[in-house]
Amino acid sequence: IRSGFPEVVYCSGKPDEFLASIYQKLYDENGEVFGTRASEHQYEIVKQVLPQVVYDPISHILKIEKEDKEHIGKIAICSAGTADIPVAEEAAQTAEFFGANVDRIYDVGVSGVHRLLAQLDTVQEANCVVAVAGMEGALASVVGGLVSNPVIAVPTSVGYGASMHGLSALLTMINSCANGIAVVNIDNGYGAGYMATQINRLAVK
Amino acid sequence: IRSGFPEVVYCSGKPDEFLASIYQKLYDENGEVFGTRASEHQYEIVKQVLPQVVYDPISHILKIEKEDKEHIGKIAICSAGTADIPVAEEAAQTAEFFGANVDRIYDVGVSGVHRLLAQLDTVQEANCVVAVAGMEGALASVVGGLVSNPVIAVPTSVGYGASMHGLSALLTMINSCANGIAVVNIDNGYGAGYMATQINRLAVK
Amino acid sequence: IRSGFPEVVYCSGKPDEFLASIYQKLYDENGEVFGTRASEHQYEIVKQVLPQVVYDPISHILKIEKEDKEHIGKIAICSAGTADIPVAEEAAQTAEFFGANVDRIYDVGVSGVHRLLAQLDTVQEANCVVAVAGMEGALASVVGGLVSNPVIAVPTSVGYGASMHGLSALLTMINSCANGIAVVNIDNGYGAGYMATQINRLAVK
Amino acid sequence: IRSGFPEVVYCSGKPDEFLASIYQKLYDENGEVFGTRASEHQYEIVKQVLPQVVYDPISHILKIEKEDKEHIGKIAICSAGTADIPVAEEAAQTAEFFGANVDRIYDVGVSGVHRLLAQLDTVQEANCVVAVAGMEGALASVVGGLVSNPVIAVPTSVGYGASMHGLSALLTMINSCANGIAVVNIDNGYGAGYMATQINRLAVK
Amino acid sequence: IRSGFPEVVYCSGKPDEFLASIYQKLYDENGEVFGTRASEHQYEIVKQVLPQVVYDPISHILKIEKEDKEHIGKIAICSAGTADIPVAEEAAQTAEFFGANVDRIYDVGVSGVHRLLAQLDTVQEANCVVAVAGMEGALASVVGGLVSNPVIAVPTSVGYGASMHGLSALLTMINSCANGIAVVNIDNGYGAGYMATQINRLAVK
Amino acid sequence: IRSGFPEVVYCSGKPDEFLASIYQKLYDENGEVFGTRASEHQYEIVKQVLPQVVYDPISHILKIEKEDKEHIGKIAICSAGTADIPVAEEAAQTAEFFGANVDRIYDVGVSGVHRLLAQLDTVQEANCVVAVAGMEGALASVVGGLVSNPVIAVPTSVGYGASMHGLSALLTMINSCANGIAVVNIDNGYGAGYMATQINRLAVK
Amino acid sequence: IRSGFPEVVYCSGKPDEFLASIYQKLYDENGEVFGTRASEHQYEIVKQVLPQVVYDPISHILKIEKEDKEHIGKIAICSAGTADIPVAEEAAQTAEFFGANVDRIYDVGVSGVHRLLAQLDTVQEANCVVAVAGMEGALASVVGGLVSNPVIAVPTSVGYGASMHGLSALLTMINSCANGIAVVNIDNGYGAGYMATQINRLAVK
Amino acid sequence: IRSGFPEVVYCSGKPDEFLASIYQKLYDENGEVFGTRASEHQYEIVKQVLPQVVYDPISHILKIEKEDKEHIGKIAICSAGTADIPVAEEAAQTAEFFGANVDRIYDVGVSGVHRLLAQLDTVQEANCVVAVAGMEGALASVVGGLVSNPVIAVPTSVGYGASMHGLSALLTMINSCANGIAVVNIDNGYGAGYMATQINRLAVK
Ligand SMILES: Nc1ncnc2c1ncn2[C@@H]1O[C@H](COP(=O)(O)O)[C@@H](O)[C@H]1O
Ligand SMILES: Nc1ncnc2c1ncn2[C@@H]1O[C@H](COP(=O)(O)O)[C@@H](O)[C@H]1O
Ligand SMILES: Nc1ncnc2c1ncn2[C@@H]1O[C@H](COP(=O)(O)O)[C@@H](O)[C@H]1O
Ligand SMILES: Nc1ncnc2c1ncn2[C@@H]1O[C@H](COP(=O)(O)O)[C@@H](O)[C@H]1O
Ligand SMILES: [Mg+2]
Ligand SMILES: [Mg+2]
Ligand SMILES: [Mg+2]
Ligand SMILES: [Mg+2]
Ligand SMILES: [Mg+2]
Ligand SMILES: [Mg+2]
Ligand SMILES: [Mg+2]
Ligand SMILES: [Mg+2]
Repeated sequence: IRSGFPEVVYCSGKPDEFLASIYQKLYDENGEVFGTRASEHQYEIVKQVLPQVVYDPISHILKIEKEDKEHIGKIAICSAGTADIPVAEEAAQTAEFFGANVDRIYDVGVSGVHRLLAQLDTVQEANCVVAVAGMEGALASVVGGLVSNPVIAVPTSVGYGASMHGLSALLTMINSCANGIAVVNIDNGYGAGYMATQINRLAVK
Repeated sequence: IRSGFPEVVYCSGKPDEFLASIYQKLYDENGEVFGTRASEHQYEIVKQVLPQVVYDPISHILKIEKEDKEHIGKIAICSAGTADIPVAEEAAQTAEFFGANVDRIYDVGVSGVHRLLAQLDTVQEANCVVAVAGMEGALASVVGGLVSNPVIAVPTSVGYGASMHGLSALLTMINSCANGIAVVNIDNGYGAGYMATQINRLAVK
Repeated sequence: IRSGFPEVVYCSGKPDEFLASIYQKLYDENGEVFGTRASEHQYEIVKQVLPQVVYDPISHILKIEKEDKEHIGKIAICSAGTADIPVAEEAAQTAEFFGANVDRIYDVGVSGVHRLLAQLDTVQEANCVVAVAGMEGALASVVGGLVSNPVIAVPTSVGYGASMHGLSALLTMINSCANGIAVVNIDNGYGAGYMATQINRLAVK
Repeated sequence: IRSGFPEVVYCSGKPDEFLASIYQKLYDENGEVFGTRASEHQYEIVKQVLPQVVYDPISHILKIEKEDKEHIGKIAICSAGTADIPVAEEAAQTAEFFGANVDRIYDVGVSGVHRLLAQLDTVQEANCVVAVAGMEGALASVVGGLVSNPVIAVPTSVGYGASMHGLSALLTMINSCANGIAVVNIDNGYGAGYMATQINRLAVK
Repeated sequence: IRSGFPEVVYCSGKPDEFLASIYQKLYDENGEVFGTRASEHQYEIVKQVLPQVVYDPISHILKIEKEDKEHIGKIAICSAGTADIPVAEEAAQTAEFFGANVDRIYDVGVSGVHRLLAQLDTVQEANCVVAVAGMEGALASVVGGLVSNPVIAVPTSVGYGASMHGLSALLTMINSCANGIAVVNIDNGYGAGYMATQINRLAVK
Repeated sequence: IRSGFPEVVYCSGKPDEFLASIYQKLYDENGEVFGTRASEHQYEIVKQVLPQVVYDPISHILKIEKEDKEHIGKIAICSAGTADIPVAEEAAQTAEFFGANVDRIYDVGVSGVHRLLAQLDTVQEANCVVAVAGMEGALASVVGGLVSNPVIAVPTSVGYGASMHGLSALLTMINSCANGIAVVNIDNGYGAGYMATQINRLAVK
Repeated sequence: IRSGFPEVVYCSGKPDEFLASIYQKLYDENGEVFGTRASEHQYEIVKQVLPQVVYDPISHILKIEKEDKEHIGKIAICSAGTADIPVAEEAAQTAEFFGANVDRIYDVGVSGVHRLLAQLDTVQEANCVVAVAGMEGALASVVGGLVSNPVIAVPTSVGYGASMHGLSALLTMINSCANGIAVVNIDNGYGAGYMATQINRLAVK
Repeated sequence: IRSGFPEVVYCSGKPDEFLASIYQKLYDENGEVFGTRASEHQYEIVKQVLPQVVYDPISHILKIEKEDKEHIGKIAICSAGTADIPVAEEAAQTAEFFGANVDRIYDVGVSGVHRLLAQLDTVQEANCVVAVAGMEGALASVVGGLVSNPVIAVPTSVGYGASMHGLSALLTMINSCANGIAVVNIDNGYGAGYMATQINRLAVK
């Protein structure tokens, strides 16, 4: 794997038999396998061929992970509300699967900025920060102003009305006036976890 | 004036002769006159009939104001960047013309949240806070989380690219997860100053 | 509670166990508890732990409220069509829970403007007016032109076709040419009721 | 002319020589000629070949009209603000050129609904009403609720910020909950005057 | 009924008991009753109180209509594809209920323009034409160019992908370069039938 | 040139010196040179180095073309209004420069469908048809329904209000219900001429 | 059939009885019948009247095809991801039904450009290339740069978040800087297969 | 400077006197000063107080830079077309000013993918890649698939028609199916250069 990253399964929409066989194949090749956006039903399907598979109903991650994996560096994952946790966890567990240490700083939305400031040290020490927020998505700018290392912003589809399924949060983050912020797709915790891992590895190397 | 507010001139696009005569008429009736969105050229036009008229090139307000006007209560006007000051000043001078005391807390954008926290007392004491911001417009949410009184959010057209002339900031503010925030049109400092005055009067009465 | 407002539960999407425990906890702390966007199913869940909980299938409010609560001042809640009543009731009951007197002026949409004029006195006496409307959302402008106190406009997702789930009504309200109007998110009766309460308290104090 | 309507020149963007020759040609054929969206410069150009041509800088109509033209029926043209008058006049003068009687009811925007009610009789007597409004465009719904005959709604590009050059007013009008309203393009006074004339003729015949 | 039109029930979303009682009440008052957007289920509900009620599963109209109603004038209803027929029928039956004669010219979409030309006489004789089309919505322009009387254009939500649930067809129709076209909301057959009836009555009177 | 097409210059925005040198270079290599979107000023610049260069102020094409070029096959270019001619000419002259015979069928917009039908034979004989239209863009569908060969649809930015600079016409064309239509970018006459040439060559070969 | 193409059934939304009878009728006339967007349920319905009908659950094509049909020329169908295969197959089977030879080059998305380069010869030999891609839709530009013959680009609704159900891919393809690309509606494999067949026939003739 | 980055001046829109004094102040403090989005006129203004200031009319950067600055690591800046170079240079010179080595790989748009492949080694060796592209913005995905280190994607406003001033390119990049890509605002070369420098420093440390 030239990129240094194992292949990850995007489970959503995969037919049952296809999913089972791809999990089997990747497990045989790598001794572990990691998939995102899996449903409860897909868990049942894969469990039939790989009984040791583990499903997290929060992040919708379905995986078999090698034990005693070494974790390096530090990534901080901040999220605004409790409803953003599924996306934050997709980012966090992706980064952990790829071998990074992760600090979770959840429920620190900007309508109560002291909650974030209370954990400032943890955020500032990370090699890369992932900021996950729906609704107005303002968390990324506040975090970006507080840290010196890069921030990956993840808009989420949390919200209603003019949140337009995450488009408002995406626009907020793309227009951020803070330095050192770049944005991934709505709900793309996986993509943020991946890029944070790339940066964390460069920092540790 | 049943509403308790004098008529205000929206200068933008008014033909020269019409503008001059409306300023003359309102001045004759009230002994003062207040207009927004005036150009340098319109200042020259009105000055010919009312030499005492005063023009502020920042806020684009063109006015004759009675001296020794009494000011009551307290409104706080927060703005994110220096480029938002014209809109903030439109709000501030509108509220002052309508008889409110105004505290200006400028350049406290969320990418440096400590600048806002440093002036927290002033913001919290106001009967109403106006939060003016372009680009990602996140200021309103942070302010909303820090104060107990109502916040009027004003998106500005400051920004470029995906700011879409203020639409992104408007969406951010409408989606705010903080309590006690309502939003006016892009660059509508006047409207925010008006409503803040209404609230301030109710509080003082 | 520094803000003077008790915490409110946003029920939508909360897992069953989590919802039950948060209702229990808030009830234990405050002797009352108030939640919005609750489903019939969530009512059943909470009733198991707090049998005295009351559910309103119109507003989707799920609450236990202290008896003999004092109500102050006056807020008027106007709504355009019968389909907007759920949002209007979310606003009204929120304001009442927070201790305000509320006048309901429903079904006064602008396609029959005499219905609104017939109740003009009630609307004009309120310290704050909430205007709730979907489809073209024109109610806010008409109300804004008739009253001297602030108007909180709530667009609703009522409509079809080019109503775009409330975006058209939101744009109408944001562009209002009447003085003293500010807008909250689509269907955000809670937010309007909250801010109306803030203003009403300032007026009564 | 099978349709019963003479050809009208859309002047905007027409090259000088082309414009002059088309005016000459239509005048030779019909003894009169009517064009919309003409500039001051185009007036000068056409005046050189047809010195009797008349230019209205408000409506931007450039025409030679037969004298003693008979006018039939009645069309009412309502407009919201003074800035909407150019579009209202395009509608009014178009209808008059096509032979209709026109009543102008201007500056009756919904933020002061009594101004419209004061002229209710005139509006209700017309065979067709044209409602012209920018910003939030709410006039059409209020008018539609007050009259029994058809209403043609014309959104205008008047406004700023979230008015999006008339798109907001267009959406408002398309979503109207009043009966008997249909909408033409932004600033299309000509189109509204045309259709109002068609209806007025059917009513008189 | 000052407007000369009986009240029509918009069934969609009405609770069962409320719907039954409103049908009962209107039937008692007028000896007939007419509702749009009714579901099969709502038909069952109303049939229990008014067994003579008739349901059309195509147009979703639920009605009791007086016998031997007189019909006047002529309205032509053109539709583009078979999938647009539900909306065309909503328009047609609305106009018939209100006492107009209706000619149906269906399946004459512009990708086969000779189908429309083959029925040109019928279309040209009508006092008003309703043009119903989804997808690219081009029918309104072609019809508008062929007839002298007013055209009411109804965009439908028929289509997929970039049709955006009817917004594309709406834009097409609003931008029509043909004279004498105005547009109602997406899928609003009722509104078109109503306004066509107004025009037809004026023509017959 | 593997693709069989010479390089074409997109003049818009190119600095003067750069433009002159690129024209010189391409002329030296090929004995001819072809550029689109050239301004009058750019014509003057290039004329200084290549006096034989020819500028067409309608299409904004700036070129030196070999004499006695052979032209093959047949492409038909239809346009809706006179304002669409610049884009139609960009397509036509591009195809001619690349060696195709072109038939121009201009001013055949759908609001007068008989103008198009009068030239049906010419359109049906072409190997490929380019349909150019702004405003509602309905021409492509009507043409598509009349011919058996492929249609390239070109939306133009002609229009105002809800035409949104060509986006409405683009959406109309993309949603066409006629068979055998594909769409290029707004005002992209060049792209349509290019692809029509590719198809024409395949047909002749 | 003047166009040289048999009629194709768009099954989506057709009532059961209507679908069965149209299949029967077309089969009787032509000895074969071809429909797109059919559901499993519709397959069962049609099988009752035409037991030999064949259903492909991937492409959702439901057909009876004549045996020993001759196929001519060559069309290449490229697709980006496995999730785009249903649309690619709709294009491929449409072209095959219309008598074209088709080469399938699937799973050659631009995030691994070597996969496409590995099959470059096949793509370059085709008379026409169909490029099918969702998410960012970049495949069309890369293919367009590699081949000399026309490319029909098909955006798909594959993706999430800011893919906006295919609108992002559509915009990508319409803005392509490669020569010789035109675009059809989102998920419109049928339309692409149709136009590719037209071009392929012209090339073979 | 806790962040390790000196303050940068965003010149656009700054009043003349203010700009001159801020350049003077920053130069006095740091012995160098760097500003983006400067006009020719602003260059003249600043030159009057700081004659040694250097202006680059391509990138619109206005700076005084210390000599013999050390540069570390390696950033690759890829751009699609020549019209994207101003934005690419804003990124490149920003990164160089902050002390990074930069490789420029320009004019490697995806419509000629071999140009990019020819410089693959350079791109793959960089610690971070910046991909700058307008129109369809597909470069980021192709680059992302070729390198293992993070890619910062910068959409530009280059294009016309449906490019919507860069929004299309932004959407393309946000939807990228390649791993390790995050996006900044349209034309935000500065922001990309900043974040690339952060990553490059982490990699070198
Ligand atoms: N949640 C996710 N969001 C976006 N991309 C993902 C996600 N999970 C996995 N992927 C990407 O999708 C690829 C697998 O796609 P597929 O071949 O369709 O399973 C992986 O290699 C990742 O690049
Ligand atoms: N209907 C509503 N719309 C918007 N915000 C609400 C609503 N109901 C409650 N909230 C807010 O959501 C907060 C609770 O969110 P949560 O912690 O997710 O339950 C409350 O404190 C309110 O600020
Ligand atoms: N202001 C206007 N807005 C829209 N259409 C107009 C306007 N004025 C004239 N027209 C139409 O444009 C046609 C003339 O267009 P043209 O041939 O380009 O001059 C007239 O016959 C009218 O149908
Ligand atoms: N299909 C329809 N689309 C739009 N408006 C309708 C429709 N059917 C009825 N209406 C209108 O809705 C009104 C009844 O609304 P409601 O009081 O909610 O039943 C009628 O008087 C009509 O003005
Ligand atoms: Mg930072
Ligand atoms: Mg607050
Ligand atoms: Mg008011
Ligand atoms: Mg009416
Ligand atoms: Mg007509
Ligand atoms: Mg065809
Ligand atoms: Mg090519
Ligand atoms: Mg990569």
